[in-house]
Amino acid sequence: MAKTNPPDGGGSDANENTFVRHRVARPPKEGLLKEFKSVVQETFFHDAPLRDFKDQTASKKVLLGIQAVFPIIGWAREYNLRKLRGDVISGLTIASLCIPQDIGYAKLANLDPKYGLYSSFVPPLVYAGMGSSRDIAIGPVAVVSLLLGTLCQAVIDPNEHPEEYLRLAFTATFFAGVFEAALGFLRLGFLIDFLSHAAVVGFMGGAAITIALQQLKGFLGIKKFTKKTDIVSVMHSVFGAARHGWNWQTIVIGASFLTFLLVAKYIGKKNKKLFWVPAVAPLISVVVSTFFVFITRADKQGVQIVRHIDQGINPISVGKLYFSGKYFTEGIRIGGIAGMVALTEAVAIARTFAAMKDYQIDGNKEMIALGTMNVVGSLTSCYIATGSFSRSAVNYMAGCHTAVSNIVMAIVVALTLVFITPLFKYTPNAILAAIIISAVLGLIDIDAAILIWKIDKLDFAACMGAFFGVVFISVEIGLLISVVISFAKILLQVTRPRTAVLGKLPRTNVYRNTLQYPDAAKIPGILIIRVDSAIYFSNSNYVRERILRWLREEEEKAKAADMPAIKFLIIEMSPVTDIDTSGIHCIEELHKSLEKRQMQLILANPGPVVTEKLHASKFADEIGEDNIFLSVGDAVAICSPKLAEQQA
Amino acid sequence: MAKTNPPDGGGSDANENTFVRHRVARPPKEGLLKEFKSVVQETFFHDAPLRDFKDQTASKKVLLGIQAVFPIIGWAREYNLRKLRGDVISGLTIASLCIPQDIGYAKLANLDPKYGLYSSFVPPLVYAGMGSSRDIAIGPVAVVSLLLGTLCQAVIDPNEHPEEYLRLAFTATFFAGVFEAALGFLRLGFLIDFLSHAAVVGFMGGAAITIALQQLKGFLGIKKFTKKTDIVSVMHSVFGAARHGWNWQTIVIGASFLTFLLVAKYIGKKNKKLFWVPAVAPLISVVVSTFFVFITRADKQGVQIVRHIDQGINPISVGKLYFSGKYFTEGIRIGGIAGMVALTEAVAIARTFAAMKDYQIDGNKEMIALGTMNVVGSLTSCYIATGSFSRSAVNYMAGCHTAVSNIVMAIVVALTLVFITPLFKYTPNAILAAIIISAVLGLIDIDAAILIWKIDKLDFAACMGAFFGVVFISVEIGLLISVVISFAKILLQVTRPRTAVLGKLPRTNVYRNTLQYPDAAKIPGILIIRVDSAIYFSNSNYVRERILRWLREEEEKAKAADMPAIKFLIIEMSPVTDIDTSGIHCIEELHKSLEKRQMQLILANPGPVVTEKLHASKFADEIGEDNIFLSVGDAVAICSPKLAEQQA
Repeated sequence: MAKTNPPDGGGSDANENTFVRHRVARPPKEGLLKEFKSVVQETFFHDAPLRDFKDQTASKKVLLGIQAVFPIIGWAREYNLRKLRGDVISGLTIASLCIPQDIGYAKLANLDPKYGLYSSFVPPLVYAGMGSSRDIAIGPVAVVSLLLGTLCQAVIDPNEHPEEYLRLAFTATFFAGVFEAALGFLRLGFLIDFLSHAAVVGFMGGAAITIALQQLKGFLGIKKFTKKTDIVSVMHSVFGAARHGWNWQTIVIGASFLTFLLVAKYIGKKNKKLFWVPAVAPLISVVVSTFFVFITRADKQGVQIVRHIDQGINPISVGKLYFSGKYFTEGIRIGGIAGMVALTEAVAIARTFAAMKDYQIDGNKEMIALGTMNVVGSLTSCYIATGSFSRSAVNYMAGCHTAVSNIVMAIVVALTLVFITPLFKYTPNAILAAIIISAVLGLIDIDAAILIWKIDKLDFAACMGAFFGVVFISVEIGLLISVVISFAKILLQVTRPRTAVLGKLPRTNVYRNTLQYPDAAKIPGILIIRVDSAIYFSNSNYVRERILRWLREEEEKAKAADMPAIKFLIIEMSPVTDIDTSGIHCIEELHKSLEKRQMQLILANPGPVVTEKLHASKFADEIGEDNIFLSVGDAVAICSPKLAEQQA
Repeated sequence: MAKTNPPDGGGSDANENTFVRHRVARPPKEGLLKEFKSVVQETFFHDAPLRDFKDQTASKKVLLGIQAVFPIIGWAREYNLRKLRGDVISGLTIASLCIPQDIGYAKLANLDPKYGLYSSFVPPLVYAGMGSSRDIAIGPVAVVSLLLGTLCQAVIDPNEHPEEYLRLAFTATFFAGVFEAALGFLRLGFLIDFLSHAAVVGFMGGAAITIALQQLKGFLGIKKFTKKTDIVSVMHSVFGAARHGWNWQTIVIGASFLTFLLVAKYIGKKNKKLFWVPAVAPLISVVVSTFFVFITRADKQGVQIVRHIDQGINPISVGKLYFSGKYFTEGIRIGGIAGMVALTEAVAIARTFAAMKDYQIDGNKEMIALGTMNVVGSLTSCYIATGSFSRSAVNYMAGCHTAVSNIVMAIVVALTLVFITPLFKYTPNAILAAIIISAVLGLIDIDAAILIWKIDKLDFAACMGAFFGVVFISVEIGLLISVVISFAKILLQVTRPRTAVLGKLPRTNVYRNTLQYPDAAKIPGILIIRVDSAIYFSNSNYVRERILRWLREEEEKAKAADMPAIKFLIIEMSPVTDIDTSGIHCIEELHKSLEKRQMQLILANPGPVVTEKLHASKFADEIGEDNIFLSVGDAVAICSPKLAEQQA
């Protein structure tokens, strides 16, 4: 069978001058252990994380191992003054941005402002030693703060039991860290890929709206405000308080500084060189407005102020964690949810900037770093920290080179905690609200949503589902919707693979989808179907039924057009990368159904795994090796003359 | 670009004599509504269930609609005496098999024997009117009985609160029916495909062992027996009772009749014409042993007997269902689990026999029939009924033609209930145990397990996981393991798609996996990689990283062999059936990474959906339409001379 002259003088995708017909090869059989090893490698170590360890001495291996856990050892040796300059500038810039944000975000988590600042001190230091991203800016972020606040609040009232609430928040932070590190350590990092990009865009947009709406309390100076986060409840609160609850002085302060922040943002966007304008605008707002309130004593007019922030750096909080009881299990649950969202955000940021600067990020190692940083954070009075989109972008644009910018930021935050916090006493809450509103607006990515709409309507549905879920119901429900829709899409993919009828492109021997290439001509008496997926238990019944439906439809068409009846069914198996027992059953049943109708089943180009399994299951013998071809072209070349014979 | 002479005189998969080069076609754009409609159709109506309704008058449509719900109307008109003869014979055969089984299975569910018989009366009648399988035999089955018994027992002790236990069992049956019907009605039947064949084989085998072990109580005449189902607890009970708890008279009766049953089974297996021997053997055993005990009064010697079965057909049980309270929610949960297992078994049977006789089964309609039958059953004192593997096989071999055989069986069971039940008084429990053991042994499918081992090692792991989970822990845990492993396999499939390096088969223009075809030669300076899956959010990062790893490895090889550096990366996209926003990002990032290394990314043969999305996202413009080819051959034909130029 190795060399035959295909009867139609064309035959196969082969070069005409030689008429070579190759057999479908059975790949060399691998041992069980080797097969198992290769599956494990592709699943958990596809990026070959140990490749640098190969062919090294033992001592070198230990050094490499330590360096793998603490990348700082690697890059510190190549550190120089030029890099330091960039890192100091960017570190100062993100510090000025993070201090006011931290104070505001802590309030989203129903915590005192100081905990926001604490979380910008210890976690960035830990990350700087262990993380591999050069651009990420670590600290509290809006969405995770809101999520943590909402989830913890449902368990304990933060006003009635502030101490228990705080302990629950630390417990959740601890377990968030444990989960993150465990995912990385077990190399299960790919699990976060199950939250689809589209769902994340929708979720983030919805969370941004929700956070902005929550700020209306501080922005309008309302005293009685709903605890719910959905837009209906919030609007009810806002307009219910309209008659006597709004404070005009607060509104004036808030609105003027929000305008200032938005203008600064616009300037930064228009001229990339002025990126520092929006970065320092929040701190300027805080300084100016605090001074203004201090001078005018506007707080006596009902303008709410921060009042008091404890001085000093993070106290130890080891004893505050719950390790038994109801709050322990709740802490695990909340930590799991918030930790995953934090992880998704941080890894997305790390990957984005790594791609921009073309360096590699090991997702799993990154997770270990983020997890460790949160575990350490939970022991030092921090709540969940992660990578911040807005601050990382500023960090990048300010010219950071390494994680030293995070160290610089942490030092500035620590100095602030030690020396400057009393000065925040007269900072009006309205300013913090304005800063948060201007920050979270950047999370609403309308361009991405439009692109998603253009590319994939189902993705857009996922995006909108998450968005409206967050805005109209709650953050958790929105997150749940995102996850469910993401999974539904995966399930849809594996249960309903595509199939296509192929035809021959004119004057070639190429067979292509007749719907994509209207030129491609079907061959009378032969139906060619391509199955576009591995055939597994999850789709084998569908595949069989769908092929039979194609057959039925094509037979009806052939009858209507008075064409010869279909005698050969060729399945193009190039895209069928794998098959399991259910899949083999499916093809066997198809073969039997066709036999009863006097049709011949033919397989074209099964891959290595499929070929192996066709033989292992003896189906290759049942159908006959003669009916398995290297390509559709080969198959047609052999079937056509048979067909002519039958009709003669 | 439509017609060019490829410079190497070969070019593309194309026929040599004409040198045609086709463009990659952008399929005609579909409207949003049409696109949505086609997704919905493929997902929920892929078998075109309404095709018969097309082009019919309104009255005809109504008639067809009624017939769709009650297929009996369709086939009853073509019913004739010849078919009746086959159905009566097979109906009588399965009745003789089901009566002793029913009594035994009811005990597995911790219910009185009569409930087993009830469940073989009403449900088969309902199914006969609504079901579309011609061969399935309806009634209680061992595995579902055991599952229901185990789950209900964990909530209520059947000895202490028999009335509440019974009510819970009916409630669970009701909701099992509701779930089954709902799945079918919502056309979500494909969800049961998520339990993989391998997991089912393992689960069934484990359940068979567990059931057989449970029978040791009746078989050895042990009075005190564990309530747990795992093998360790059971063995502990058995040997703990060895000294004084075994009853030798019971063992003699049980062992001799078990031998008889197994011999009968062996005869039936050896000679297919004697299929009726194993089918009637149980009834003969019951009659003979009952008579024997009645004569010898062996029950006075400690041989346990059935004692009493109420006379009369099913009483109404509408008032017994729980519709509120704790048992209501437990009923929903238990019904959901047991219902899904029952459904999986019934649909698998229906499909198997439909394939053997080559008729079509509509899975969703089948589920509505099975669900309705259980809902009606729960209102008439039945517990969950489904299709029985062993009885369906007997039904098929006895020559059944339609569901009339189920009607015949139901009538015989009803007559038994009305007239014969008092005669079962002296039936020894050991006989029932022997009948169940001999019945469930058929569920242990060693051949299937061996085949699974040969075909797919991961599948085998799933199979064994389910098996050992059931045998060593419990039925629920075994089921959970099956589901989890099945899902893990699906997730593995979507997160870790295969990729392959392609080479050119000698003297052809065909490009194939170099691992499968060691002959296939790589082309210096060009790396060709095939991605074997749709690129979605769940795998886009993996795909990008894996391609970069291939590139790194091939570059190292090229360097070591002193070959020209790689300048072109061709991605063969034939198997990439779809791409989402994350996938587009992945390719964009890959393109950027390659640009930085002075390499050119080239796409070969993107399918219709992918082509559309490449254009919608403007990536086609970014990479340049010139770098998208119809086939790998075309791409190589264009790249090779460019490469030669660069090197010159």
